[in-house]
Amino acid sequence: MQTEAAYYTGNKTFSLETIISEPPGPDDVQIDVAYCGICGTDLHVYLGHMDQRIGNHRVIGHEMSGTIAAIGDNVSDISVGERVVVRPLDHCGECPACRRGHAHICQNLKFLGLDTDGAFQQKWNVPAHTIHKLPDAVPLDHAALIEPVAVACHDVRRGRVQPGEDVLVIGGGPIGMLNAMVAKHAGGNVTISEINPHRLAIASELGFTVCNPKDEDVAAEIMQATGNKGADVIFEVSGTQPGADLMTAAAATRARIVMVAIHAKRPEVDMFQFFWREIDLFGARVYEPEDYDQAIDLVATRAIDAPKLITDIRGLNEIGDAFATLSGNPEAMKTLIKCRGEA
Amino acid sequence: MQTEAAYYTGNKTFSLETIISEPPGPDDVQIDVAYCGICGTDLHVYLGHMDQRIGNHRVIGHEMSGTIAAIGDNVSDISVGERVVVRPLDHCGECPACRRGHAHICQNLKFLGLDTDGAFQQKWNVPAHTIHKLPDAVPLDHAALIEPVAVACHDVRRGRVQPGEDVLVIGGGPIGMLNAMVAKHAGGNVTISEINPHRLAIASELGFTVCNPKDEDVAAEIMQATGNKGADVIFEVSGTQPGADLMTAAAATRARIVMVAIHAKRPEVDMFQFFWREIDLFGARVYEPEDYDQAIDLVATRAIDAPKLITDIRGLNEIGDAFATLSGNPEAMKTLIKCRGEA
Repeated sequence: MQTEAAYYTGNKTFSLETIISEPPGPDDVQIDVAYCGICGTDLHVYLGHMDQRIGNHRVIGHEMSGTIAAIGDNVSDISVGERVVVRPLDHCGECPACRRGHAHICQNLKFLGLDTDGAFQQKWNVPAHTIHKLPDAVPLDHAALIEPVAVACHDVRRGRVQPGEDVLVIGGGPIGMLNAMVAKHAGGNVTISEINPHRLAIASELGFTVCNPKDEDVAAEIMQATGNKGADVIFEVSGTQPGADLMTAAAATRARIVMVAIHAKRPEVDMFQFFWREIDLFGARVYEPEDYDQAIDLVATRAIDAPKLITDIRGLNEIGDAFATLSGNPEAMKTLIKCRGEA
Repeated sequence: MQTEAAYYTGNKTFSLETIISEPPGPDDVQIDVAYCGICGTDLHVYLGHMDQRIGNHRVIGHEMSGTIAAIGDNVSDISVGERVVVRPLDHCGECPACRRGHAHICQNLKFLGLDTDGAFQQKWNVPAHTIHKLPDAVPLDHAALIEPVAVACHDVRRGRVQPGEDVLVIGGGPIGMLNAMVAKHAGGNVTISEINPHRLAIASELGFTVCNPKDEDVAAEIMQATGNKGADVIFEVSGTQPGADLMTAAAATRARIVMVAIHAKRPEVDMFQFFWREIDLFGARVYEPEDYDQAIDLVATRAIDAPKLITDIRGLNEIGDAFATLSGNPEAMKTLIKCRGEA
């Protein structure tokens, strides 16, 4: 069957190609992709930072929603026409991490849409074990937010946010904002530290306390606001040296820092503070099935207000423009690509 | 009553002074100090690194054992003649850390022997709440090891070492060696990474696997020895940049790193690895009462073989020589000062 697929072809280019879609393998399902959001990782691919891993003829995209179009011979618990999202992780089942129950960070993990072709196409074949079914309440455009919401659910679960705790989110981009929303839903008193005025305005509109480290001493503000205690839980989502400095400076005794950001360069870290105040730090990457379950629930019940985060919807034929517009534009939150029909 | 006290008087000097000992206050006890070990922190004081905190007329020392000489009017549960050690922490009871159950790292903590006069003297008055009684089985010289053993008990408890887990201790000085011994007692398969040949020999004699990062790639050795898994629990006790590099390089997915060392300078830390492999890090400082209880038990039952670690015993009048000998001598493990009579 003929279908359209957008291939990343290197150096900030995409090629929209008409291809013949293969039927799903025996343990796979085929999805008619509805929407697929553009992730920060996709932007890194677009900018050429991941060519070594990706090559230059790869369909990327993984923040998706869709409808089951066909099922493989061995797949029995899902039917054609069901509305679904994909948890885009394929693990080996044999490495030490898998054997110890951490399949989501398998040492040989294949991330669908990076290590295999992804969802910026009309028909997508994926292993059936990656599927989560959607309740009727969730429109498919909102459902494209479930993957990043699941990231935030995992981060907040790693940080064990309790009702009434003081939470600091360092970095107010899409993932930082979702961390803040999920932490608030868990009962946290959330402050967001961010330098971009537009993002600060969105954070304020969403009801968060905001700080701009360019204008104020965020650690001092947090200490003052908490009676010299400090933040109980800190999400470092900035990936910057000032973020690494702030995460320890604003921390309470026995605070829990969750390392969400990808620090491409090794920051200097105030390890003395980890010792002195017995601070804990937890790395957090992707998600586990229960995080998807929670994310689906949060989007379905509008506890996470997906439309507030969707700032643009573009057609599959506009994918190059969509990436160009988003790239280097910190004011944008989430752009969706509508993979079928006009945007 | 006249008594002898060794005062640190700045710039690598001690002054042995005959003073009049005050009776204990109403909530205090007075101890006839038997032995007091020289801690790494005491060496920092000796070298002048802590003059701003300590001043230049301070009795230091806190790794001690002794016998109750007198009790204050409000003290009822301890008798003259009982053999004791002191947990040298005096907390405020009012700060956020105290109110949240972390009195051992009180935000206004007074460390006895640094912020108040310590145990390098014959009679020492301390708050009664700091006392732990000793079982008959423990000789008082062995008992002087209980404080550093309690540090290791706290570190291992923070790292939650389980039987059969692969443990890496980075740094084989006194605290690293005790971490290794307590982790082995908890069932860990312990490797010690250390650069000093004499310390490596001691570690081998004690039955540990040893690695010298000057001669081999310790992370690669650990990965090979664990089937590409990595160490489950890592104690960073070196306080160095290579130690900070090794702690992430040798870590398993979801490893637990315990930050025991005092990093005076901020190291560069591979935060990407915390994200990528969801590594946890736990700061660990001093001890809580249950760590003292365990340490007393480990020394009393010879599960920790104190005599193997005591490399020298000197008299109170030899304290200057003892510090001079110990300073800059990485081959030494533990020197005790015998505070009464000849060494």
